[in-house]
Parts: sequence; C-alpha cells; structure tokens
Amino acid sequence: MPSAEMGTNSAYSDLEARFRRIALYGEVASVLHWDAATMMPTQGASPRGEQLSELRVLRHRAVTDPEIGDLLAAAMQESLNPWQAANVREMRREHKFATALPDDLVAEISDATSACEHAWREARAKADFSAVSEKLAAVIRLVRESAVAYGEALDLDPYDALLDSYAPGVRVADIDPVFDDYAAFLPDFLAQVTQRQAQKGLPIQPQPVAVDLQRKLVELLAGATGFRFEAGRIDVSAHPFSTGYRGDQRITVSYREDDPMGSVMAVLHECGHAAYEAGLPAEWNRQPVGQSLGMVVHESQSLSVEMQASRSSEFLGWLASKATEVLGPDPAFSPDNFRRLQQWVKPDFIRVEADEVTYPAHVILRTRLERPLLSGDLPLADLPAAWNKGIKDLLGVDVPNDRLGCLQDIHWYDGAFGYFPTYTLGAMLAAQLAEAAHKADPEIPQALARGDFSPLMRWLGNAIHAKGSYLETDALITSATGHSLDATAFKRHLHRRYLEG
Amino acid sequence: MPSAEMGTNSAYSDLEARFRRIALYGEVASVLHWDAATMMPTQGASPRGEQLSELRVLRHRAVTDPEIGDLLAAAMQESLNPWQAANVREMRREHKFATALPDDLVAEISDATSACEHAWREARAKADFSAVSEKLAAVIRLVRESAVAYGEALDLDPYDALLDSYAPGVRVADIDPVFDDYAAFLPDFLAQVTQRQAQKGLPIQPQPVAVDLQRKLVELLAGATGFRFEAGRIDVSAHPFSTGYRGDQRITVSYREDDPMGSVMAVLHECGHAAYEAGLPAEWNRQPVGQSLGMVVHESQSLSVEMQASRSSEFLGWLASKATEVLGPDPAFSPDNFRRLQQWVKPDFIRVEADEVTYPAHVILRTRLERPLLSGDLPLADLPAAWNKGIKDLLGVDVPNDRLGCLQDIHWYDGAFGYFPTYTLGAMLAAQLAEAAHKADPEIPQALARGDFSPLMRWLGNAIHAKGSYLETDALITSATGHSLDATAFKRHLHRRYLEG
Repeated sequence: MPSAEMGTNSAYSDLEARFRRIALYGEVASVLHWDAATMMPTQGASPRGEQLSELRVLRHRAVTDPEIGDLLAAAMQESLNPWQAANVREMRREHKFATALPDDLVAEISDATSACEHAWREARAKADFSAVSEKLAAVIRLVRESAVAYGEALDLDPYDALLDSYAPGVRVADIDPVFDDYAAFLPDFLAQVTQRQAQKGLPIQPQPVAVDLQRKLVELLAGATGFRFEAGRIDVSAHPFSTGYRGDQRITVSYREDDPMGSVMAVLHECGHAAYEAGLPAEWNRQPVGQSLGMVVHESQSLSVEMQASRSSEFLGWLASKATEVLGPDPAFSPDNFRRLQQWVKPDFIRVEADEVTYPAHVILRTRLERPLLSGDLPLADLPAAWNKGIKDLLGVDVPNDRLGCLQDIHWYDGAFGYFPTYTLGAMLAAQLAEAAHKADPEIPQALARGDFSPLMRWLGNAIHAKGSYLETDALITSATGHSLDATAFKRHLHRRYLEG
Repeated sequence: MPSAEMGTNSAYSDLEARFRRIALYGEVASVLHWDAATMMPTQGASPRGEQLSELRVLRHRAVTDPEIGDLLAAAMQESLNPWQAANVREMRREHKFATALPDDLVAEISDATSACEHAWREARAKADFSAVSEKLAAVIRLVRESAVAYGEALDLDPYDALLDSYAPGVRVADIDPVFDDYAAFLPDFLAQVTQRQAQKGLPIQPQPVAVDLQRKLVELLAGATGFRFEAGRIDVSAHPFSTGYRGDQRITVSYREDDPMGSVMAVLHECGHAAYEAGLPAEWNRQPVGQSLGMVVHESQSLSVEMQASRSSEFLGWLASKATEVLGPDPAFSPDNFRRLQQWVKPDFIRVEADEVTYPAHVILRTRLERPLLSGDLPLADLPAAWNKGIKDLLGVDVPNDRLGCLQDIHWYDGAFGYFPTYTLGAMLAAQLAEAAHKADPEIPQALARGDFSPLMRWLGNAIHAKGSYLETDALITSATGHSLDATAFKRHLHRRYLEG
C-alpha cells in the first residue's frame, strides 16, 4: 500500500502507487507483444491473445476504478509541485479516455475491427474495396460513436478527441493550415526536384548483402545513436518496431538481402524512438508524466535520427565509407551515388515506401478523406475514386487499383482514425527541431560527418526526452524551438537538401 | 464473469473462471522468466523483478481471496463429475497452501532467502561454510515456521507438509524404506560396476564440436521425442530448463564446444519434461486438475526420456551413428565407446555431475541431513563434517572442501527443504514406468534402436500425461504400474544396464 509523503498529499501518493502498477501491466504487455512478433511459435498465438486480453482487462479495471476519480479530485486540493501537478493532469487524461466509452462499445469495436481487419486482408489480396466496405462502414459507425463519447468526456469536437488520443493537445485547427501550406508548396517543388534529379540519371542500386553483414552494420549504427546493448536488444520481425521500457529497450528490424540499406535506415528510425524512451526522466519512471508525449513527438524523434540526421549529406558521406567497410565494396557506395540513392525522390502510390518529400502528400490525402468519412459526408462507395483523384492531384500519378490505393494501409480497417496526421506533423517537427538544434550547437553537422550522433542526441535529450509529458505538445515544441509547429522549417529543409545540396 | 453450467454448479463454474485467470498469470510469468534467462539484457533485471513481483501479488491475492474458501465449500455441495471433483480437490490444495502462511512470514522468507542466497554465492567462492551459516540458520528457522503452518493447514507433520508442497501425497514414511533399501544396495553394487568398468579402461572422450552442429543434433533429437517446433522453441541459457504452456513449450540448453554430448543429453531430459506438459489433458487446460502432478512425476518423465530411453544400449547405438552423421566422425562415437561414455559410473562429490547409479546417494545424504537440520537435532556448525562423513560412507570418496561439499547446491540456501527427495523418487519411478511400458509394449526397445520414441511416448502419454492431476501421486503410480513406488525396478534396471549389458 502506498504511503503518504509527509501526510500532505496522501491522495496523490495513492495515485502514484496505482499508476505504477498500471505501468507494470503495460511493461509486461510490451514483453508479450515483442515476444509474439519475434520469438513465439505459431501455436502460441491463441494463448498469447488470451494473456494479453487478461492484461488489458486488468489495466482497464485499474485505470477506470471509480476510486481514481475520487483520488484525482482530492489530489487537486493537495500541495503538489509542478511535476506532480502535471502528473495528475496526465492521470486525469488517462482516466477520462478509459472511462469515456461504455464497456459494450469497447467490446463492439474490438469485434468489428477484428472482423474488418480480416476482411481487409482478403479484399487487399483481391484488390477489391467492395469486399470490405460493409465491414469498414460498421467500424466507422462505431469509431464515430466513440469519437463523440471521447469528445463529450474531454470537451472536444469528436475528430479533435481522436487526434488528442494520439497526440495530446493537437487540434484539427492547427493541422489544416500547415497541411494546406504544404499541399500548395508541393507540386512546383516536386517538379523542380525531379527535373534536377533527372539530369544525373538513375543512381546505381547496391548488390545483395548477406544478413550477417547487414546485422553488423545495424549494430554499429545503433551503438552510434546511443543505443546501449546492456539495456536493449535488436531482433528480427516482419515489420520493424521499437518497444520496451527503462533498462530494456527492444528494437526489431527486417532484413532483406537485396535491400541492404533498407534495414540500416529502418533501424536508425527505430533508434530515434528508442532514444526518446531511454531518455525519459528516470525519477518519473512508471508515472504518466514520465511517459513519452504522444505520436507526433515520438515520430519527430525517429525522423530526427533517420531523416534529418542520417539522410543528411554530412552523415551519408560517413555512412557510405562504413557500408563499404562492413558490407564490402560496391559501386553503389561511392559517396555521390550513395547520397543520391538515400535522397531519391519519386512520386508513387505507396505511403510506406515514399520519400520524405512525397510522404506528406499521402498523409494529407488520408487526413482530408477520413474526416468526411467519419462525418458521413463522403459515402464509402465514393472512397476509391476520391482516393485516386487525390493522389493524382497531389502527386500526379494514376493509381492502378485499390490494392495500391485505398486498401494499402491497415489503419482505418483497424479503427485508427486521427492517427495519420501524426506522421507528417512528426516530420515537420523533426525539421523544426533540427533548425533549433543546429542553431544551439553548430557542431552537430560536422559531428554527423564523423558518424557522431552525440551532440544531436544531447540536445534532443535535454529539449525533448527529459521533459516526458511535463509539457503538452504545443508548449513542448515552443520551449524547444521558440514557436509553434508550422511547415516553414520543413520546407526550408527540403529546399536545402533537394535543390541546393 | 463465469456462467453457471445449467445452473447446477454455479460455485464450481465461478471457481473455474477464477483459476483460469490464475493460470493466465502463471503463463505470463513463465514467459517473463524464460525471457529473463534467454533474452533479457542485463539492465532489464531490475524492472523484470518488479514485474514478476507484481504478478506474484496478483496471483497470491486471487488464490487467497476469501471468496474462494466460500466457493469451495459451496462447490462441494454441487453435483460434480469425477474430474470436476478432482479439480475442486486441487483447488482446495492450492488455496490451503497459499493461505497457510501469514503475509509477514512470506515477506520474511523472501528477504531471508535473498540475503542467504547472496551470501551463499560468496561463501561457495571462498569454500567457507561459516560465511553463510548464520544466514542459513535464519532461513531454516523461517522454513521450520512455515512447515509447521503448512502442516497445521493440511493436517500433516511439518516435513511431510514440505514434501507435499513439491509432490502431492508423498510422505516421509514412504521415502525412508525406499532410500534405506538403496543405501544398503549401493556399496556392493558400485564395487562390482567399477571393477567391471576398469577391465576395459577409460572410454575415449569426444573432440570439441562447433555449437551450430550440436544445435542440429539437438533439434533432430527433440523432434524425435515428439517436440513440435510449431508449438515450442529451443534456446540457450546458463542452465537448461523447460517451461511454457499448451501451444508454446520452451526448452533451453547450454552448449559447450568441449562437451558435445552434454547438450544432447540435457535437451533429452528437458524434452521429457516438455512432453509431459504438452500431453496434459487439453480439456482441462488452465485448471488445477489439468496441471502436472508435482516434482516426482515430472522428474520421472524427464528421466524416462533421458536415463531410461536415451541411455539405453538400444538407443545409444542409433545415437552414435546420428552423432557421426551430424557432428562428424570421431573415434569416441564408435558404438562400444559411445555406449561406455554415456553409461560411465564414477563416485564423486558433485550431485549435478553424477551418473544415475551414484546420484541417489547424493539425494539420500541430503534427505538424511535436512530433517535433523530443520528439527534442530543437527546443529549447523556440524553440517560440513556430517556431510563429508555421509559422502564417504555412501560413495567412499573424501570431500576436499565445502565448495565441493555442503555448499554445492543452492536449494537449502534458497529455502527449498523437502525438494531433494523428488529427484531420486523420480528416477525410481522412471524405472518402474519403463518396466510397465515394456511389458505393455515389448516393441519399445526395438523402436528406440531405430531412434523412434513414439511407442514409448504413446504409453507415457496415456499412462501419465493425459491424467494431469486427476489422481494423486500414489494412485497414479499404481494405476500406471500396478503397485506403489519402491526401489526394486530401479535396482533391476541398474543391474541389467551395468552388470549384464
């Protein structure tokens, strides 16, 4: 049982003890998820599902316990320091989200998304959107219902409530001008970049490389970003991810012999996520205020390492020589060819394969479509055509079929609406952070040219990682960069890299 | 919430739902333990300890919930089939053990054994028993107290209560005559075996073998015992063990290049444990009656595979040719030399390195010492001398120091009293089961001579695995072999293998 600190904030201390327990359930679930993706034999899937379901029940019961509501009210009357007060704010947020939905709606969403995800896999294989549209309609109806419920609990518009669940404090009113700005910038910029690229012809692709050699380079690079193997592991899974907790960060990567640099760039991305988690304030470990701040900031950290730092011309020069050293000589690793390979821009259909210039177009399209889908203004039957027109307008390419169009991402079919914008807001934030970091420490680019991430990671550690969830998103961004998030730093970054480099 | 079956046994149904949840906590803990031993980075140890401690609290709270007592009383009035009734019996047993100790005693034991285990590691390194004797005295005092409490809860003598916690229904009155019988048999038998061995000189030891080749043989042999890689894994840990649950069995092994057959025999041992778990009755999964029956029966299953089957002359002939095929040719793998290597008998100090002839002497000594230690009749200061005299009397060898004597095993220092007898009872049961199996299916030895474990595993599956905890230990042994456990089959087995083979 928790003990009161000096008796002055016993409700607060009780809350800390409860949220510590809740965090432990989360740590256990993260180990089970990691194991399921990396180690578990096929027949372990069914018992694993039941174990995770039981953990979810435990966690949900603990977060929604009516006593939490009483303790939160009592704690707000107690004498709290600013971090404790921020901790209570984050506890309230978790409690509100967890109690907003009635249990039967939670169960309905779980059933509907399971059924829809299954149908989506079949529909995608057949490139036939109509095979999943009915199940997607059911998911959308339930997501709309939950958005309304969240909105009422948090006093937000429904779509803002969904956004807030992924990125605390982010509102659609902030996103629209930023995305419109980028959509207006893109066509002309893209034309200039592709024209400039075409002058030098296609870069040479690397030869296949054995996985063992790729692993060596991956481990060397992870170490360079500050990843500590005494407090983490790197394993193989179908899709790369990063999970874990203080003392035990786990990254995964997917190796392909015919794409040796794919694993390297993917692991650098995950190392950015892992560095954020590793740099969270130790003294607030397992408390809500000690957690990462949401998906926009998390993605900004992975993209700070992968896109801003690792695809900078400075770093790519060093990486080309390391690739030669570890993977073996290859004409593709000549400094100029290597840089062009990693900075290649190509408008195409698939979001996850997009470069940093065209990626936002994929996100902007999804953001523009998911709101009328949710409100009902866009009938589902019209989605494929709206999708294809959007891609044509933004990127100038023709989508050949629904598999390469509106069936390519799992998100909506899995009930995730309000998530897509976080990718591009994260990319823009990464650019804004890079400007601030380079201004504060002009040595960062030269250090990267030596493969040395430490000045960059030191700055990110202080400006972002160590803050946990003490500040809300806009306040954190302003404290780190001097102003709110916008697209200007990102556009400047793209101009420098693709038209001046 | 659990639903009553036809409304006729609603208390029973509620209990099933609760024990299912308790089993899920156990499954989760087994994944965390496995991960800690095989995968976890060093700095993951501290958070992992807290996660496991939280799971123990959850489990303890669920098993000791006072409502369980009421439900058990109510369920015993309900209409239950025989398996359900046995399930209630096992639930009562778990509930009684869990509620027998006051919480502060549990905490004291946990603290005392942690401190003692730590001191034991230092004392063992220095070969100085006096460096740990005070902490061991504290552990013994608390174990005595818990034995008394268990005994009162279960209406058993204190030492019987400890035995029962590892092997349900096993009593010291059953052990004494069996162990005395073996102790009387051993000296003369050992003299005959070592004399017979000496006539042919020492067998040739195998050359070192790369771990990758050992792993191939290990996986081939595990498959031969029925281990299914779609429902399990084999990994590396410092000490071999077997854990997991239906659908996800995990075995570990420790490879040493200079001892290629060590890993092979260790994995066959663990495969016996895993086969037991995999063969438990599926329809009683996650219920107490569907669990394995305790350490005597568990050890009998590992030794049925390792000692009875895999060290039989029939199987060793096949294994020698497989070793040649997979590990490469080696004069040590000639059929006769290979058999002599795997059946070598040598009286020595260390239990875990002992052969099957001398192993029981180590166990008998510990069993004879731990009872007067617990009762206080043997003062701790006299333990090293009593130990050394016991080894001399039983095996004729002189213990050079306490590190190779009474400091060699962690068990007592970790609070495990009443555990040692299960090893040798398991070995004797394995011999008794082998006789019954060969009588029921005389093809078993010929099948083993072809590397085919399936007739043996089929018999064990029906006679032991599928029974779960439906019968108590003595009833299970009698149902499988026609009579209670004694040393006669084991002595006949040793005579055949070491004096007639």
